[in-house]
Amino acid sequence: MKEITRTPIVILNFKTYLESTGEKALKLAKFSEEVANETGVNIVVVPQYPDLLRVSSEVEIPVFAQHVDAVGAGGHTGSVLLESVKLAGASGTLLNHSEYRMKLADIQKTVKKTTNHKMVSVICTNNIETSVASATLKPDFVAIEPPELIGSGIPVSKAEPEVVEGTVDAIHKINTKISVLCGAGISTADDMQAALDLGSDGVLLASGIILADDPKKALFNLVSKI
Amino acid sequence: MKEITRTPIVILNFKTYLESTGEKALKLAKFSEEVANETGVNIVVVPQYPDLLRVSSEVEIPVFAQHVDAVGAGGHTGSVLLESVKLAGASGTLLNHSEYRMKLADIQKTVKKTTNHKMVSVICTNNIETSVASATLKPDFVAIEPPELIGSGIPVSKAEPEVVEGTVDAIHKINTKISVLCGAGISTADDMQAALDLGSDGVLLASGIILADDPKKALFNLVSKI
Amino acid sequence: MKEITRTPIVILNFKTYLESTGEKALKLAKFSEEVANETGVNIVVVPQYPDLLRVSSEVEIPVFAQHVDAVGAGGHTGSVLLESVKLAGASGTLLNHSEYRMKLADIQKTVKKTTNHKMVSVICTNNIETSVASATLKPDFVAIEPPELIGSGIPVSKAEPEVVEGTVDAIHKINTKISVLCGAGISTADDMQAALDLGSDGVLLASGIILADDPKKALFNLVSKI
Amino acid sequence: MKEITRTPIVILNFKTYLESTGEKALKLAKFSEEVANETGVNIVVVPQYPDLLRVSSEVEIPVFAQHVDAVGAGGHTGSVLLESVKLAGASGTLLNHSEYRMKLADIQKTVKKTTNHKMVSVICTNNIETSVASATLKPDFVAIEPPELIGSGIPVSKAEPEVVEGTVDAIHKINTKISVLCGAGISTADDMQAALDLGSDGVLLASGIILADDPKKALFNLVSKI
Repeated sequence: MKEITRTPIVILNFKTYLESTGEKALKLAKFSEEVANETGVNIVVVPQYPDLLRVSSEVEIPVFAQHVDAVGAGGHTGSVLLESVKLAGASGTLLNHSEYRMKLADIQKTVKKTTNHKMVSVICTNNIETSVASATLKPDFVAIEPPELIGSGIPVSKAEPEVVEGTVDAIHKINTKISVLCGAGISTADDMQAALDLGSDGVLLASGIILADDPKKALFNLVSKI
Repeated sequence: MKEITRTPIVILNFKTYLESTGEKALKLAKFSEEVANETGVNIVVVPQYPDLLRVSSEVEIPVFAQHVDAVGAGGHTGSVLLESVKLAGASGTLLNHSEYRMKLADIQKTVKKTTNHKMVSVICTNNIETSVASATLKPDFVAIEPPELIGSGIPVSKAEPEVVEGTVDAIHKINTKISVLCGAGISTADDMQAALDLGSDGVLLASGIILADDPKKALFNLVSKI
Repeated sequence: MKEITRTPIVILNFKTYLESTGEKALKLAKFSEEVANETGVNIVVVPQYPDLLRVSSEVEIPVFAQHVDAVGAGGHTGSVLLESVKLAGASGTLLNHSEYRMKLADIQKTVKKTTNHKMVSVICTNNIETSVASATLKPDFVAIEPPELIGSGIPVSKAEPEVVEGTVDAIHKINTKISVLCGAGISTADDMQAALDLGSDGVLLASGIILADDPKKALFNLVSKI
Repeated sequence: MKEITRTPIVILNFKTYLESTGEKALKLAKFSEEVANETGVNIVVVPQYPDLLRVSSEVEIPVFAQHVDAVGAGGHTGSVLLESVKLAGASGTLLNHSEYRMKLADIQKTVKKTTNHKMVSVICTNNIETSVASATLKPDFVAIEPPELIGSGIPVSKAEPEVVEGTVDAIHKINTKISVLCGAGISTADDMQAALDLGSDGVLLASGIILADDPKKALFNLVSKI
């Protein structure tokens, strides 16, 4: 299991873009590793399930799953078993992404299982209230992403700075060990800097890098002012 | 893409058993390949998504996914993209398994996409009525599995032979090109033989082999009377 | 149970518009009854669950539910039990509306239960393929509504006449007893007439009437050329 | 809107039992009202959606819905609109029942909407962790119900008293205004007394009363020792 020094952190969600599937997932992960090595920034890549092994066996940076289901081992055809993504090299997972909202009971069960397996958990949330509720479940990270800004190119750190600050404050009142990430609309070095200035420990992003003309350059730029 | 000579066929669903996850998935797939080579029976293995590449790169028999989501490429964090499982070596997929029932509109959309990608589709069903409805969507296979018999050890081919025969008859009235598989409770050579005698083209099974003391032996026995 | 003479039929879906909730649901149902009485057209109203009793006890035209869940009586908090909507006066139900897509297995189970309870079933579908699959389940009606046209004001009978005709043809090859309705974008007498000319037995509509400045007048106009 | 004096409170969930549907829902609500009047205990009845109006127009005790969906007014066929259940006489609603688990984001959205509409919210939970997370969302009540005890006849107040006490303590650390209810397996006066002794403000129950030979008598007994 690769360790994550927590701050600052960039989590790159590959989603289901063709630009980050199969061999392209590996290429993007390699770029990410190069940028991480050159800059010293912690970069985590989050490929699709079928690409986890391909990526994790070729890069040294942390590899997370995009989701795991709240099922145990057994008769659960089609479900995503935590043990399976772990054996494929994932050292953590996103949970409750805006494109895959989860039931409260399943988030709790999954965070707990993630902890038991010494994996990192990142609960994605949509506002301060759900961020606080999520924080009580003791994940490693809460990633606040106002849904209306996802994929918009308008960074949450600029459009709704009070949401990021409010989330950081509210979460740290509950548990100072939980790191807050800032998502939605992040793509530039200024967005990244603003996110850190607001008290977050890093960013969760996707299209701003993956769909860029030159993803490696975009990623390098993103972390250039840290 | 590996071709499937259709009859008889054995589809081995790895589900989310720990006994068929990670390295154990590969081992089970290797056993399956050996039995396929020794007996000439078409055996398809169906590992979890993170194991698809690991398995498909090491065996020559067909590898299917357990499910794919009805999403296109793009912003769909956590979803299972058909293109992704295909690039990981899957040449087909189960759909609508009893442990992952799908919406009608999603089954139709997914079967169509599967065909467009020259992949094999297997729609799982629970009775004659849903089998007929599924057959109109032109999948390659319909696998009839009365839910009450799944994992029971009681073979559908013995407990409800009329369901298998009725399904075969009803589906062939609609489209003779669709093959019918028989699932639920299958584990022995007699079960397999009974399934074929009832007009099916093979079986879909899981625990009877995967949880056997000696899975390779169990699989060999299964196909020994064909 | 109020009987439905099948052709032509207008099913008015109240959805969850405030304009058709509570006392306004009753008012809209009264309007619908008046138009039905004045014109002889079969008009069915489809209010929300909490309004079923209020409406059904005050009008003589048929009242349908918007959906019923595939559950039996028992411990199913929050689910919509068929027996419950029936006791509240519903003589039929929509199923699988584009805003409430259902699993294939649940559609089959629910249509069967609807028939057993001598209630009318209307399966909503999105294209010819799912219409044919639905028709094999023997509902009373299939309502074809291309999702992209719902609420668009562009009538399916004009935008995609081949979908309506194709659905009518394909369904009648399977079962001539199943009536086909035409939904999505219907609001005028011409839309209604076009729907009937294409071989459908009527229409399923909502916003075109409910959100009209004068719903009663809009409904009267809709059926004025039949 | 009927007011709820909070302590002690008995919430009687009608679920989808035939014994509490239609006219039988009204009868059971009348019994509940009689017991409430005779004993002074706050009893809330929770019928199915189609029975809300029938019940609320005939009894003076509070009537809650079993669930409301996280949708606004508009095009949401089949969904349960908060405004609709309110207009049918519901003054509150259960949320996230174990038989209808909700997504975290939907619970938050719905609790907020419930508050805005001056309705009472009861979030059902399965353990201390999800109870605490729920409490941060500021519902009126949290009802802790270990799923394994629901319908078991084994009262949570006896089987897992530490879960009830732990929930009460943990919730009151966050917000002393939130009342805790105790569910699962409650049916006798001793169960009720134990629930109150453990610090809860009342109980949420169903089958113990609804399926009793004499529901009125069972309900009367339940509250006889308070």
